Amino acid sequence: MNKKLVIRLLGALLLIEAACMVPSLLIALIYRDPEDAPAIVWSILLMLAFGLPMHLLPRGNTAQNLHAKDGFAVVGLGWIMMSVFGGLPFYFSHLLPTFVDAVFESVSGFTTTGASVLTDFERPLHGVIFWRSFTHWIGGMGVLVLTLALLPKLTGRTAHLVRAESPGPTLSKLLPKMGDSAKVLYLIYAALTVVMIAALMICGLSPYDAAVHAMGTAGTGGFSNYGSSVGAFNSLAVEVVITVFMLLFAVNFGLYYRMLLGDWKSVVRNEEIKWFLCIVAAAMLILAVLILPVYHSFGAALRYASFNVATVISTTGYAIADYNLWPAAAKMIIVLLMFIGGCVSSTGGGMKVMRIIILLKAARREVRHTFQPRNVQKIRMDGRGLEEDAVYQIVTFSVVYMLLVLFGAFLVSLDGHFDLETNLTAALTCVSNVGPGLGAVGPAGSFSGYSPYAKVILSLLMLSGRLEMFPMLVLLHPKLWQKF
Amino acid sequence: MNKKLVIRLLGALLLIEAACMVPSLLIALIYRDPEDAPAIVWSILLMLAFGLPMHLLPRGNTAQNLHAKDGFAVVGLGWIMMSVFGGLPFYFSHLLPTFVDAVFESVSGFTTTGASVLTDFERPLHGVIFWRSFTHWIGGMGVLVLTLALLPKLTGRTAHLVRAESPGPTLSKLLPKMGDSAKVLYLIYAALTVVMIAALMICGLSPYDAAVHAMGTAGTGGFSNYGSSVGAFNSLAVEVVITVFMLLFAVNFGLYYRMLLGDWKSVVRNEEIKWFLCIVAAAMLILAVLILPVYHSFGAALRYASFNVATVISTTGYAIADYNLWPAAAKMIIVLLMFIGGCVSSTGGGMKVMRIIILLKAARREVRHTFQPRNVQKIRMDGRGLEEDAVYQIVTFSVVYMLLVLFGAFLVSLDGHFDLETNLTAALTCVSNVGPGLGAVGPAGSFSGYSPYAKVILSLLMLSGRLEMFPMLVLLHPKLWQKF
Repeated sequence: MNKKLVIRLLGALLLIEAACMVPSLLIALIYRDPEDAPAIVWSILLMLAFGLPMHLLPRGNTAQNLHAKDGFAVVGLGWIMMSVFGGLPFYFSHLLPTFVDAVFESVSGFTTTGASVLTDFERPLHGVIFWRSFTHWIGGMGVLVLTLALLPKLTGRTAHLVRAESPGPTLSKLLPKMGDSAKVLYLIYAALTVVMIAALMICGLSPYDAAVHAMGTAGTGGFSNYGSSVGAFNSLAVEVVITVFMLLFAVNFGLYYRMLLGDWKSVVRNEEIKWFLCIVAAAMLILAVLILPVYHSFGAALRYASFNVATVISTTGYAIADYNLWPAAAKMIIVLLMFIGGCVSSTGGGMKVMRIIILLKAARREVRHTFQPRNVQKIRMDGRGLEEDAVYQIVTFSVVYMLLVLFGAFLVSLDGHFDLETNLTAALTCVSNVGPGLGAVGPAGSFSGYSPYAKVILSLLMLSGRLEMFPMLVLLHPKLWQKF
Repeated sequence: MNKKLVIRLLGALLLIEAACMVPSLLIALIYRDPEDAPAIVWSILLMLAFGLPMHLLPRGNTAQNLHAKDGFAVVGLGWIMMSVFGGLPFYFSHLLPTFVDAVFESVSGFTTTGASVLTDFERPLHGVIFWRSFTHWIGGMGVLVLTLALLPKLTGRTAHLVRAESPGPTLSKLLPKMGDSAKVLYLIYAALTVVMIAALMICGLSPYDAAVHAMGTAGTGGFSNYGSSVGAFNSLAVEVVITVFMLLFAVNFGLYYRMLLGDWKSVVRNEEIKWFLCIVAAAMLILAVLILPVYHSFGAALRYASFNVATVISTTGYAIADYNLWPAAAKMIIVLLMFIGGCVSSTGGGMKVMRIIILLKAARREVRHTFQPRNVQKIRMDGRGLEEDAVYQIVTFSVVYMLLVLFGAFLVSLDGHFDLETNLTAALTCVSNVGPGLGAVGPAGSFSGYSPYAKVILSLLMLSGRLEMFPMLVLLHPKLWQKF
């Protein structure tokens, strides 16, 4: 590992995180809640105290040799560090009782999971709560992508960094320069967020509530400043806006760029978006039929089905109903959607629709292989044949993903507090970055009942899910630390 | 599809099944239960009525052209047909109320699952109950393997048949001729079963009880003639014997052949058996610690842990305790073991230990790949490098397996009777051919509460699991039926 470069980059990350806290500080100064601004100021000062020396002290051979493993290590370590420091405002403001809780909430924010240990939503802490949602917004696109967009020269060869942080199996190179691609993506992201804030304000939300829920939607995170989440507004208009935007943010951002360029051909050719829309439509209809007995009218059932399909497949996790009370088949749809997740290069989590398509195609090929043993056809995606290496990697990824959920659920269940359904869906919802699960961690529950041990495990699962496992697994590899 | 050959082979299967019912008829004649012998006689007559014309009528070009797809089709169709006819004695004797129940029980028998809808164990039907356990014994090794052992010349080129029916990714060719390999495997199987019957009789069981439980163990099935399963004997000696034999039958039978030949080198070189034993030992110890609070003494905890680890990993499904009452972490171990299953070329189900090893090695290679992107090493097993094709197939198989469990659980949950834990573990226990699950289908429960629809789905899941999916998936492929 290139120790100096890694420390220098981690220092830069901390400084950027400190800068990201400034808007929250301004909010705190506007609202003048007593414990609000001091908590944020102390957090910023601590980040500067660590970040400045880390970034400035290591002189020498930097910016040149960023190997792939260093990239993964920076991403893995960077996200852990960001989460630890990002939890400080929750701890300093006494919003959450313990430091583990604060870090859990921060990890959940940055990974855009939205699983929460917060139970007291009445405390006046507008700045800190704004920061809580702002972590979703930063985490959605990725903080290293942000670094790259703002300071393209800082990081030298950065393809590894972005690859390690970006969701999905492919990084669509929109523009020849990585920095330019990052800028374009962040601009689209910011523009969509602003449009959504406006739409929510038209629906009657205060600017603060609109901003909090737009950031939570943009990052497909799911933190709300109300205990009953989006259900608190009890407004069909708000639900429709949030449903539409949850789905929009779960779509490959590269497609928006193509649309802006007028390149409709590659949008039409994109298989993933068609599958995504088909899955969403089918799931909404089936779910509406399944929950009809609960809501009596088909209109109401469709309303709850649509919102919940969008919130789960986009891995946002906002709630307007407690799907814990639904029939078992409806719950299984929720579980299946949790595995699927959004499209690649979106802010959505999960296994990603593209991987699911390729898995199904690979399975179909195996069956067909039985008929024509000598004739092995390439798996095609968007009209092009995929390399076998890519297919292999996607299949391996998927199986490791499912094993991680199963093994994670076992580690969580050692906690001893909850039943199998709770533990299993807690692990799944964390790896897939959805937010609520079933049972005690359902939309009406919270993760606060877990022990500190389980919260640490769930935090690691959230990070593994958001970073698509390998940056976290690389950190476990002894070879990384040999030359350190 | 070679229609004539397939029908001829299916007819032969029915005749063999009729012959397999003769021992049960003898038992029935000995015990003279009123409804026992007639039910079996009528079943045999029906099988002859269908089997004879099917086997004898289609003349012409047979025994030559058995393509891979025909092989898969014979196996898939054959197992469905066998199960339907095999359920007749349960229906004719009124042991089970509906024909769907009878077929479910028969599928569960042949696939060596041991999931039961039987609730009334008091009916005097010694012959029918013997048949119920005998299906385990036939299903364990495979009825086509049996055909091959008895009538090697009947089936012509039969490698496809055996490959489609044998569990695990490799069929270790013990001897140059397939028929000879089948004979050797069946001889070892029969010898181990006889030894086990003797051991159980020494422990004080009646010859009938000993035979029933030995056949259930040999096939790693799990049907008992007592409602409380092996718990009915309340004997440590019986439990020890059954634990040891459950593990023995979950081991690659090829290893026993090597041992008989004195080829200890290839036994020592076998990685799978070492992993299997390590997993078993680790699981027993961890489980014993986890259930210590339930049983108070470590001796008792270890007794229950050992039996249950053996019964689940071997996918037998005998019960001496209701693990539904255990803590959540203990239940998660049960779930993990259900996925793993036995060794390849054993009678055990599940994903098989060898696949799990290769999955973990493939995952480790992906992590290592990050460090040395240009250096892709072959995955090694038993000291030899595996072909990439084989690795790819195993990884694909594993992911399809897990998707089948998830999607199967969704289909089962449409039934509407039970909760998510019950449905999820019902699907898993059926695909992995274990037997009991958690919740309502736990060791103390039964599958009788499910609707006929769910029983059909679960039957298909059992068959898919036993035949390792592809023979069943091939049946769904329209191309198979085009030339029919």
